[in-house]
Amino acid sequence: MGEAELQGARGRGRAGGGAARRAARTGLSVETARFIERNIPDFELLTLEALEIIETNAERVLEEIGVSFVDNPAALDRWRAAGADVQGERVRLPRGLARHLCATAPARFTQHARNPERNVEIGGRNLVLAPVYGPPFVRDLDGGRRYATIEDFRRFVRLGQMSKWLHHSGGTVCEPTDVAVNKRHLDMLLAHMTLSDKPFMGSVTEPSRARDSVEMCEVLFGRDFVAENTVMTSLININSPLTFDATMMGALEVYAAANQACIVSPFIVGGAMAPVSVAGTLTQVLAEVLAGVAYSQLIRPGAPVIFGAFVTSIDMNSGAPTFGTPEASQILFGAGQLARRMGLPFRSGGGLCGSKLPDAQAAYETANTLNAALLGGVNFMLHACGWLEGGLVASIEKFVMDADQLGALHKMAAGVAMDQEAQAMDALAEVGPGGHFLGCAHTQANFQRAFWRSELLDYKPFETWDEEGARDTATLASEWAKRLLAQYQPPPLDEGVREALEAHVARRKAEMPDAFV
Amino acid sequence: MGEAELQGARGRGRAGGGAARRAARTGLSVETARFIERNIPDFELLTLEALEIIETNAERVLEEIGVSFVDNPAALDRWRAAGADVQGERVRLPRGLARHLCATAPARFTQHARNPERNVEIGGRNLVLAPVYGPPFVRDLDGGRRYATIEDFRRFVRLGQMSKWLHHSGGTVCEPTDVAVNKRHLDMLLAHMTLSDKPFMGSVTEPSRARDSVEMCEVLFGRDFVAENTVMTSLININSPLTFDATMMGALEVYAAANQACIVSPFIVGGAMAPVSVAGTLTQVLAEVLAGVAYSQLIRPGAPVIFGAFVTSIDMNSGAPTFGTPEASQILFGAGQLARRMGLPFRSGGGLCGSKLPDAQAAYETANTLNAALLGGVNFMLHACGWLEGGLVASIEKFVMDADQLGALHKMAAGVAMDQEAQAMDALAEVGPGGHFLGCAHTQANFQRAFWRSELLDYKPFETWDEEGARDTATLASEWAKRLLAQYQPPPLDEGVREALEAHVARRKAEMPDAFV
Repeated sequence: MGEAELQGARGRGRAGGGAARRAARTGLSVETARFIERNIPDFELLTLEALEIIETNAERVLEEIGVSFVDNPAALDRWRAAGADVQGERVRLPRGLARHLCATAPARFTQHARNPERNVEIGGRNLVLAPVYGPPFVRDLDGGRRYATIEDFRRFVRLGQMSKWLHHSGGTVCEPTDVAVNKRHLDMLLAHMTLSDKPFMGSVTEPSRARDSVEMCEVLFGRDFVAENTVMTSLININSPLTFDATMMGALEVYAAANQACIVSPFIVGGAMAPVSVAGTLTQVLAEVLAGVAYSQLIRPGAPVIFGAFVTSIDMNSGAPTFGTPEASQILFGAGQLARRMGLPFRSGGGLCGSKLPDAQAAYETANTLNAALLGGVNFMLHACGWLEGGLVASIEKFVMDADQLGALHKMAAGVAMDQEAQAMDALAEVGPGGHFLGCAHTQANFQRAFWRSELLDYKPFETWDEEGARDTATLASEWAKRLLAQYQPPPLDEGVREALEAHVARRKAEMPDAFV
Repeated sequence: MGEAELQGARGRGRAGGGAARRAARTGLSVETARFIERNIPDFELLTLEALEIIETNAERVLEEIGVSFVDNPAALDRWRAAGADVQGERVRLPRGLARHLCATAPARFTQHARNPERNVEIGGRNLVLAPVYGPPFVRDLDGGRRYATIEDFRRFVRLGQMSKWLHHSGGTVCEPTDVAVNKRHLDMLLAHMTLSDKPFMGSVTEPSRARDSVEMCEVLFGRDFVAENTVMTSLININSPLTFDATMMGALEVYAAANQACIVSPFIVGGAMAPVSVAGTLTQVLAEVLAGVAYSQLIRPGAPVIFGAFVTSIDMNSGAPTFGTPEASQILFGAGQLARRMGLPFRSGGGLCGSKLPDAQAAYETANTLNAALLGGVNFMLHACGWLEGGLVASIEKFVMDADQLGALHKMAAGVAMDQEAQAMDALAEVGPGGHFLGCAHTQANFQRAFWRSELLDYKPFETWDEEGARDTATLASEWAKRLLAQYQPPPLDEGVREALEAHVARRKAEMPDAFV
């Protein structure tokens, strides 16, 4: 990156510090909940015996079958030096080697946001919520389904910034298909950095784009800060089964070397990219994560990394991936147990669904997955809102519908208060048989925070609802999204930093001809 | 009941035995899944310490505040004789008395259906699913929202009979408002007995109607069979807080004396009928169930009974009950733990929602509750399908949408197979890195039962779905319900039994003038 671009950020430390103070002064700051700290147990689906079988089998897979590191001679050299059996591109890991290497990965880490109030702690009992990632299409009630553009992208980032229960701005919230493939990441990062003050993800579609991401963070946060802190969490998909391609591994190498976090995540449609059984799929997931995380630690011991599992089922009639199914939940629960036994943060879940519309199918499937993710101990939930049509579509309405439901996860995770006030024995005595509690002292003192309340869903009497147009959830969501976007204000950002970021993007774009691969 | 009416059933034992054999011969039998036997753990939300606090507090409520048995001098006599402190209609129970009396209630029991293949075992690790109960309105896509009629009632019973994942025909699946209040129960029971061969519920709106229910069962099953077996599970709501009215207790007295099962169920909108806290509400629920179950055992020690908890939250802005909320789930989880510690079957959950339409709101809220009910150890789930608008409306479309989702509960509850075939190590070796599993031997051998598949939801590619009319879930459900009703065949029933039931209903109707209270 150019030295000139760094001038903007240099000398004033964290860009977000001043921004936060200014936000407090102007009152423009949008309320965002702190990441979830679970005060409830995890749901432990699998027995200890089952977990041990899977762990033993995963070691056998690594030792006997091995994994492929494709088009990546340097990776093969690293594996050879670490004690693996390398033949061609196949890497076989002696029993215990991968797990031993994984031991240096931290159990939790802080991802910094430019507004330090929005830093997130990933791991432990925490749950960080991030929006949908990857759809080439967008859909809304007004415009229907169409290819996504950079303006759509910015709209989702603004909605994310306005969403109280969303802790993270995400990454490719939709693919800006009107920007050249080799330049999209610059515009996407610029949007996250300027339109939101929540943490975000870096580009992984080319190692050079990962380097661009790090450089833009150096402009935003300052070079010294980035050298010492994790400011991005990026998504490294494994090419399941058991294959690590050069593009994704190249991006991982850049990020791990820079101490930036990666989600090492098998991407599995069960029955196609993994065996058609829960136990077999979990075995493969564990083997893949063990190999991927171990590799990250070969790059830089201690680099922050997340045990990822994007696993869903398949409709054997049509071959379509299916979401919100019982098998997908079982795999999520099992993978969470395996991740906790490794002492790693866990990524899974999301508002996943196969429906084409933000209708009942979308909501059943989404709720099934959100509930499993909460109880399954997920620490980082990508796709928490906005996902539609198997991830092909980012939906404006579903974004705000799901984001509203995320509030319920916060309340559920807080657990049950058992102090004297919560026991409410005075209220029971005050009201007695046949009375009612609406007016009693305990209710008056506690009702405002007692129950989670949706900001979007309809709680009105039938007659009122009918007079107001008998709107369904998607219609309410469309109106709600418009209201949020109308109220949106960009979070304060130092003008010098903004100019430096824009200059960086302009320079990098000028350095490359457009490419659409 | 008239002796003549008994002739039809007498002498051939169980009416269902012959019917089942005939169904097998003609191939008309509709496939129905066996009740769920959970092979997964329960989610234990509350700590042991929290449970003990609630139990101690519930005993204090019973001892210090007490419960009211209204307009029921015989009940007060029974309580006095059992050692309670009775002043006016207030009954205070010395610490430990209620729990001691509850000890004779069975941990599980069989409810018999006229087709013995459809008997259900209520309690233990089982989950029995029954449809919506109580709505005065119906809604469907064609006719909108309107008062329910007996023809609507029959339509729901037929849909229930055709629903593979529904184990129980239920009770008042909607209120047949075109039939006199004092005669409805006769038509409703006749519909359950003749249009379905699944187990059902009896009337509770008057003690005399409970007696009618027992008598009609004697016609259907034979008097001796009913004397020795439980053939109904009926819903006894407690008038929360802490009040047991004469109507419901009168029905309970009839059923318990006849060894028929009752669900003893607080009906609570939190903040109105109970304290505005989870811990306080659970304390009240436990106190009410302890008193109600204890009373059932005063009527007949050993009478089958279920620990019920219909508890939801309130929107403090509008006073409307809200469903699928985190607090409702927390109460469900806690109540399940309390029920298991009492060794009683547990009723809660359902496809509960507040939405006016079978849209995304309905599905989010429903899925939140269904998931909590499965993991919370519910044994009997009323309202499992068809519930809309806070229970004011029975929806044709939501009935089949929810009923389809119940299939996912079956698969989730089955747990994870860990045998050699499920471990799939051969498949992993056969396919190896970079391959795919669709054609491998393990997939071919297992794919048909590997993944749960909705019969209703859309899994088609976007283009196909679009060409076929871009239907949303409610539209698909409307078509699916029509197909089920078109395919419906009444389950075989001995003609003599049918005639005896019809004669009984005709005679009882003739004995009373119509009444609409």
